Amino acid sequence: MTIGEYIATNVDSNFPLDGVLPFKTKEQYFKKGSMVTDYGETEKYIYFLKSGVVEMTLLHNEEEKIFEFFFHSSFFCAYTSFLNQKPSDIRIRCLGDCIIDIIEREAMLAAYETSLVANKLGRIVTEQLFLIRSKREKDFMTKSAEMRYTELLKCRPELFKLVPLYKIASYLGIHPESLSRIRKDIS
Amino acid sequence: MTIGEYIATNVDSNFPLDGVLPFKTKEQYFKKGSMVTDYGETEKYIYFLKSGVVEMTLLHNEEEKIFEFFFHSSFFCAYTSFLNQKPSDIRIRCLGDCIIDIIEREAMLAAYETSLVANKLGRIVTEQLFLIRSKREKDFMTKSAEMRYTELLKCRPELFKLVPLYKIASYLGIHPESLSRIRKDIS
Repeated sequence: MTIGEYIATNVDSNFPLDGVLPFKTKEQYFKKGSMVTDYGETEKYIYFLKSGVVEMTLLHNEEEKIFEFFFHSSFFCAYTSFLNQKPSDIRIRCLGDCIIDIIEREAMLAAYETSLVANKLGRIVTEQLFLIRSKREKDFMTKSAEMRYTELLKCRPELFKLVPLYKIASYLGIHPESLSRIRKDIS
Repeated sequence: MTIGEYIATNVDSNFPLDGVLPFKTKEQYFKKGSMVTDYGETEKYIYFLKSGVVEMTLLHNEEEKIFEFFFHSSFFCAYTSFLNQKPSDIRIRCLGDCIIDIIEREAMLAAYETSLVANKLGRIVTEQLFLIRSKREKDFMTKSAEMRYTELLKCRPELFKLVPLYKIASYLGIHPESLSRIRKDIS
């Protein structure tokens, strides 16, 4: 999916599929394992993942924990750093080869000044990101690891095809052995 | 602060303080302890808190846990329910007497269709809500209860004037006795 198709599908059905975007984009190819944004960098871009998978991690006592995964046709960046322009506590890395459209922060902010469609897009993408964070926080407060696993399996089955199990365990906040036990118990 | 003042301060400095809002609002007075949105209700409104404090709770094993507090001059609602129009897992209750401006969801969605300022407002409020949720989730993943407490004390000192300690303990995800111990250790 292109950004134009994303807008036509999720933001404004009147937007032509080949319509002119209110900001410049630059397509870039990232090899598997390469870094998009590293810890301590200040985020200067928004990214649209055309193909591939990226992971977001954060550090706790030198252990890397998985914060989120993003798949094709989604916007992502170290958004807290993008918004407050402080060094990122998040690292973004490509789990496979990725094709990514890059939007400069300054171009996005300029579009936000005057463009209705840019603001709709920013609002709707941020709503989606809010829903993800809010659900995850609530899940950690109220659900067991087993419940979180079965829900993930049901709601995001593609994760299990694209991401190794030890990373899914980290995302669920449990040890890989606990995930193996849960999977064994369920099957 | 009024919504017009909020927009002029946070969204668009060209917006006149007495400018016409792109949606209708209705001011309502809520007595201390009254419910704004209850568990199971589908959220039909956005609220702007002109004065007072509200708490958001969610249930875990019949125990009520505090998810968030909101203070004057902020927008709030059961936002997940507002966005997906499913029953809310969040209850919103007034901790003191509150004056609240209410915006109907349909009016907000209509404004989103054509109004630049409505979309800027929606985007910026959602960015702020994202930042809160994302920070809290990261804090739970990487910081001790003591660190979370000292940060809260530093960043949101007004909380300690307006909210009883046992509710702050619930917000921090710890027992009231643990919070007392942390406070004693620090002093």
